Amino acid sequence: MPFWTKRAIDERYGGYFTCFDAEGRLDEADTDKHIVTQTRLIWGFSTFHMIDPQDQVSLAYARQGVDFFIEHFWDTRHGGWAWKVARDGMLIDNGKVVYGQSFAIYALATYFLASGDPRGLDYAERTFDLLQRYCVDVARGGYYENLEPDWQRSPGGFCAGDRKSLDIHMHLLECFTVLAQASGKEIHRRRLQEVIDIILAHMVDPENGCGGNQYDLAFNPIPAVAIRRTWNADREGEAVETPTDTTSYGHNIELAWLLVRACEILGKPRDVYGDVVRRLVDHSLRYGLDRDHGGVYRDGPHAGPALVRDKEFWQNAEALVGYLDAFEITGAPEYLEAFELVWSFARRAMINHTLGEWMTLVSESGEPIVAAIGNPWKACYHSGRAVWESIRRLDMLLSGRFGVLG
Amino acid sequence: MPFWTKRAIDERYGGYFTCFDAEGRLDEADTDKHIVTQTRLIWGFSTFHMIDPQDQVSLAYARQGVDFFIEHFWDTRHGGWAWKVARDGMLIDNGKVVYGQSFAIYALATYFLASGDPRGLDYAERTFDLLQRYCVDVARGGYYENLEPDWQRSPGGFCAGDRKSLDIHMHLLECFTVLAQASGKEIHRRRLQEVIDIILAHMVDPENGCGGNQYDLAFNPIPAVAIRRTWNADREGEAVETPTDTTSYGHNIELAWLLVRACEILGKPRDVYGDVVRRLVDHSLRYGLDRDHGGVYRDGPHAGPALVRDKEFWQNAEALVGYLDAFEITGAPEYLEAFELVWSFARRAMINHTLGEWMTLVSESGEPIVAAIGNPWKACYHSGRAVWESIRRLDMLLSGRFGVLG
Repeated sequence: MPFWTKRAIDERYGGYFTCFDAEGRLDEADTDKHIVTQTRLIWGFSTFHMIDPQDQVSLAYARQGVDFFIEHFWDTRHGGWAWKVARDGMLIDNGKVVYGQSFAIYALATYFLASGDPRGLDYAERTFDLLQRYCVDVARGGYYENLEPDWQRSPGGFCAGDRKSLDIHMHLLECFTVLAQASGKEIHRRRLQEVIDIILAHMVDPENGCGGNQYDLAFNPIPAVAIRRTWNADREGEAVETPTDTTSYGHNIELAWLLVRACEILGKPRDVYGDVVRRLVDHSLRYGLDRDHGGVYRDGPHAGPALVRDKEFWQNAEALVGYLDAFEITGAPEYLEAFELVWSFARRAMINHTLGEWMTLVSESGEPIVAAIGNPWKACYHSGRAVWESIRRLDMLLSGRFGVLG
Repeated sequence: MPFWTKRAIDERYGGYFTCFDAEGRLDEADTDKHIVTQTRLIWGFSTFHMIDPQDQVSLAYARQGVDFFIEHFWDTRHGGWAWKVARDGMLIDNGKVVYGQSFAIYALATYFLASGDPRGLDYAERTFDLLQRYCVDVARGGYYENLEPDWQRSPGGFCAGDRKSLDIHMHLLECFTVLAQASGKEIHRRRLQEVIDIILAHMVDPENGCGGNQYDLAFNPIPAVAIRRTWNADREGEAVETPTDTTSYGHNIELAWLLVRACEILGKPRDVYGDVVRRLVDHSLRYGLDRDHGGVYRDGPHAGPALVRDKEFWQNAEALVGYLDAFEITGAPEYLEAFELVWSFARRAMINHTLGEWMTLVSESGEPIVAAIGNPWKACYHSGRAVWESIRRLDMLLSGRFGVLG
């Protein structure tokens, strides 16, 4: 967090800077403000304040981000949050993307838990209600993911109004978990359970135990494509795999521990989805974990070795938490070994220790490919969260408070 | 309508009386106010004013019904409409039943079209939003139908929180049609299309072309049971058929013409669901129509002769409109003959011409079984609507404005 505390605050206009090069210098040419990283930094500063309630600076930094976010991203006409604004808050893209809306809920509900500021929960609930009003596919279940500024469904193809994905449904699971925690409302718990049901019924391969990628509206797997408003589409020229059986080791392990966390909020035993969790994690152990260099690869087929073998920050961050949860649920030492393999690789090759943040992308063996620390999609959410969630779990393991050690 | 204009207005407390015996006398022992008939009379007086815009009395009677409805049925804490209040408005049952909510939307949107009173559309839209927030089954599609006062799902069994039905999804189709007409909003059209998609995908028997009855949450047909807050359950001691393959000729024909009407509002050709419409209507021609006495029976199996052969007001009323629409779409004279068979039976055996309203229930051959004119579920909605919709269609046929005659 100190990396962001020192550099991210836009003192002039409010909100956050997010693009930093490999030396941690602000990229003056890219100061547009994207919903994904504005919300991730609101989440980050709010969480940092909860970790250390004495830290009023983090709370103030979260609040100024919320102020900017509400003033410049909230659509006072149609409701909901814009996709991108300029540094000074001028609207650039008012598209309503469920990925972005889900991070708004996640950040604002977390900010409410940290601050007690009623705006946090109020706007999180309003966003939830807009998702119910405009994004649910009442005919087939699940959520439409890409919508236009007035909440009409986007066209198919590049705008992906005709697709559903594990990615976005998983982030709905994630944000409904925190919303249910913050509000205590039955409807938020109910929608959380339903999105879990959708993912388990349609988006996990029953044969191989791994998650899928993109689906048509009726949940038939379809080849993944680049989508207009996504991180992949921002990285110009990058190919996206086209088979239907691609899977992301990072999403699988992230889903595994988010399921465990959701169970806590739903008042269920942590291991109620233990079989699903184990199979998601075991798939990554078999195909995603690099036992030579450490770390986890990016993507591969449902059955067989990884195809995209370079290593990105977020998959490796999520793997830390997922492997620790699997160890806690099963007690099997292989998950703790996997944690060690990922952590040693991250510490050696992915983290810029001088700056105190993770690089974006390194090769299979650990050579930097994209050494930049910040971009419009990164910030501190995966890296900071993984470290904090891992510290919590390791403390519990060491103090014997986890179930298997109790 | 004159029957209701003379008798239904509760001058003391506002709202409407709905229970009248075979001589048209008010049943003083049953003056509770049910959402279904309060809304049906709001719909009726609003529609009567639209038929004759000079008629300010009907408009005033609609408005006083809306005043009472908003004051006493609206749940200011949780939102939505109560199921039943006493004559003076005291709350009796605050259950949130989607059947009732759908008639609230239907009545209030119609009242808005008739009066321009913004309360009508405002409350209709708020009700729509509550359905999206609380009633959609995001995991499987469709709507939960029975909810408690705070919008939590009702338990299974008698409270039917674990069931879905053609009946209630059809009335959502019906009310979303008028709401989309009144608001012109894309989201209302979208939800209308989705509920059509649900019905056609899950609730029409592909083999026999007729509608089903009750389903589990995943749309598997299940034996119909009496449900706590329904008309069937009110008629104590009446058996409900238990096989899964029961069908209601009245619902099938009603669905047929409501589909045609929905297409008009969606801007689609009237016959875009022509095959579905024809099969629904043909099923009633084959099994539901009594060619000896005239009229249509109540219920029967998907394939085979009718089992419940007495004749209720609403199925026969809906058949009039459905047969005329089928005639208009196909030009086949058998549908006009069917209309004649139903209308002649209704005129002879079902309508109390002295009072100017339909009786509740008669035998197969036309002997009165329940000669009462009004009960907590009846009012003027099926009978009055069918007559008005039939007059409109017959006028168009005679003037050559229908497609097949054009």
